[in-house]
Amino acid sequence: MTTPAPGEGHRDGRGVRIVGTGLIGASLGLALTARGYRVALEDASPTAAALARDLGAGQLASEVSDEPDLVVVAAPPDVVARVVAEELKRWPRAVVTDVASVKSSVLAALVATGADLGRYVGSHPMAGRERSGAIAAQADLFAGRAWVVAPGPQADPEAVAAVRSLGEAVGAAVTQMSPEEHDAAVAAVSHVPQVAASLVAGRLRDLPASAVALSGQGIRDVTRIAASDPAMWTQILAANAPAVRAVLLALRADLDGVLGALEALGAGDEAGGPGTDPADSRVPGAPERGVGARAVLARAVAEGNTGHARIPGKHGAAPTTYATVAVVVPDEPGALARLLHDVGEAGINLEDLHLEHGLGQPVGLAELSVLPAAQEPLTAALAALGWRVHD
Amino acid sequence: MTTPAPGEGHRDGRGVRIVGTGLIGASLGLALTARGYRVALEDASPTAAALARDLGAGQLASEVSDEPDLVVVAAPPDVVARVVAEELKRWPRAVVTDVASVKSSVLAALVATGADLGRYVGSHPMAGRERSGAIAAQADLFAGRAWVVAPGPQADPEAVAAVRSLGEAVGAAVTQMSPEEHDAAVAAVSHVPQVAASLVAGRLRDLPASAVALSGQGIRDVTRIAASDPAMWTQILAANAPAVRAVLLALRADLDGVLGALEALGAGDEAGGPGTDPADSRVPGAPERGVGARAVLARAVAEGNTGHARIPGKHGAAPTTYATVAVVVPDEPGALARLLHDVGEAGINLEDLHLEHGLGQPVGLAELSVLPAAQEPLTAALAALGWRVHD
Repeated sequence: MTTPAPGEGHRDGRGVRIVGTGLIGASLGLALTARGYRVALEDASPTAAALARDLGAGQLASEVSDEPDLVVVAAPPDVVARVVAEELKRWPRAVVTDVASVKSSVLAALVATGADLGRYVGSHPMAGRERSGAIAAQADLFAGRAWVVAPGPQADPEAVAAVRSLGEAVGAAVTQMSPEEHDAAVAAVSHVPQVAASLVAGRLRDLPASAVALSGQGIRDVTRIAASDPAMWTQILAANAPAVRAVLLALRADLDGVLGALEALGAGDEAGGPGTDPADSRVPGAPERGVGARAVLARAVAEGNTGHARIPGKHGAAPTTYATVAVVVPDEPGALARLLHDVGEAGINLEDLHLEHGLGQPVGLAELSVLPAAQEPLTAALAALGWRVHD
Repeated sequence: MTTPAPGEGHRDGRGVRIVGTGLIGASLGLALTARGYRVALEDASPTAAALARDLGAGQLASEVSDEPDLVVVAAPPDVVARVVAEELKRWPRAVVTDVASVKSSVLAALVATGADLGRYVGSHPMAGRERSGAIAAQADLFAGRAWVVAPGPQADPEAVAAVRSLGEAVGAAVTQMSPEEHDAAVAAVSHVPQVAASLVAGRLRDLPASAVALSGQGIRDVTRIAASDPAMWTQILAANAPAVRAVLLALRADLDGVLGALEALGAGDEAGGPGTDPADSRVPGAPERGVGARAVLARAVAEGNTGHARIPGKHGAAPTTYATVAVVVPDEPGALARLLHDVGEAGINLEDLHLEHGLGQPVGLAELSVLPAAQEPLTAALAALGWRVHD
């Protein structure tokens, strides 16, 4: 490859071509333009490119004559590999990256095209939003978010450095791993949670309304992402099929253990005889009397404790367990604001906040998460101001 | 049974004996005492009963001579049936209820003891907290929460009415269904979400730290309840084994569909040949070329959309879809309070609030959920005050 030395003519590394001006492409354009980069915008839809231009994300590619130093392909997942191959061919001196949320399959497809793999470095800025399109773009979309740089084995070190610099320039927390490591990671922390949320929510479809009405905060949290777009998730899951399948197979093995334990308990534990489940039938060799079965259930929940405790805290530092302070809040405009005003006055920083709602009653419970050392002072301060507090 | 007519001597229906003074029992004592009921407190641990008494939850049972009108058994799940049977025998004119979170297995155990089933009506106030014990009790614990009254077929209508009145007296939203309907409902809306959250979180145990670091808000939400107590959940899952198993079997069938689709896609779709999953092996008859497989994935996510949309809104009314307004908030004391102050000033009631955090950056995103009609006015009002808003 031919990455120029710093300072060589106009090739200063700050000429960026963005192909695909949806949410990610347009946000990147806004962020880079604000930092003095020269951004050229290209999109299969001229209207979409013009909108991104009007929002301040850069110039239209047709109005830019310089060759780009860096090309960012932010096209839909199912065309990414093809577009990357085209861009590598069209700009023989440029480094090319993409922002697809799955990395191995893009690289595999590029290998098959015979593309110049030294100049290709995949990346994945983890900064989606629930809305899409340039109209939802924001210059600070990447600020503080993880940005994974995932070079293949043939990637040139200077190309890797160029893509890392891109993520750092827009304020992201850049980390580097292989495409396989990336795909295994997002399978476990993103794709499998999506499948689980969708399947749990799907079980509500045929439930009586009186049963669904018993839904509490637990299932609301577990299924929040079940509202996601099926078309988008079909593309993501299909692109990462082997890695998602590997995690789901392990999860199914755990699930089968739980099912076996429940079967043993349903058949052997009740005074009324066999369980009421019509599908009930003993598995040969299932634990008798529920002793081993209870241990299986306890282990499944305990292993969940262990895994959950590994999820990092808000600042990406070592995993942190927060203390919670629960405060009764009237369900009226301004009540939560008064509470948080008082929290702020106490000089205590909120790490997280959950509102818990009752059914048909004008009162809610705000669960404030704070660093453990702040729990007692916060409880005392709020109680002194007349809030009903439970820590 | 012998429920007295209203006004008959001191048997006015307001003498309540509470057996088990943990979180639920002590909270109920506080709520009933505040409403003029005469509450007698009993606990296997005299210290626990005395603590509840000192907190204002009632008198010690040893100091009360009247027979109770109503007995509430709030003992640990694994002794509930035995204690209910004892109380039915000891107080031959009292209605007895319990507050265990699973109902069929308690009733089945009582049937086996030959208890007087006319005076027993199970119930389930859905008002847990993350903390336990009388020290965490609150008089408004049940306010606005669902309280399921689940009479068996032999329950006397007057006994059912007495237990319904209890729930209504403490401000709960009382609903009635059979023990089997109740257990099927909580299996789907509470117990299966817990198992799913635990299993998804459990998959994080052996992941490299760099992979866990990519966790975003999605997996945080899905796994929040994975921090729950294994001992308590083992009791709950074991007590509701048949109903939980029935829902999990249906979920496993859906999961197997997803696994089959992923296998077909991993084997047939990649330019590089078969998937990289070492466990990969074609299922005979799996869909070729991924066309049917993509439809399976899309359907799983779409069915999750449908189920998720059925979850009722905060006031227990018809399911409501809220609009969200996202606002950039500096991560400093008082910033969120200023925002919510401005929301309150705009006269708009928050339905829900989520904080979304970046990694290592002093900025967060507050997602405000409001009724759809309030989305535009709120966005305009906040933008006018200088907030960076994205709807």
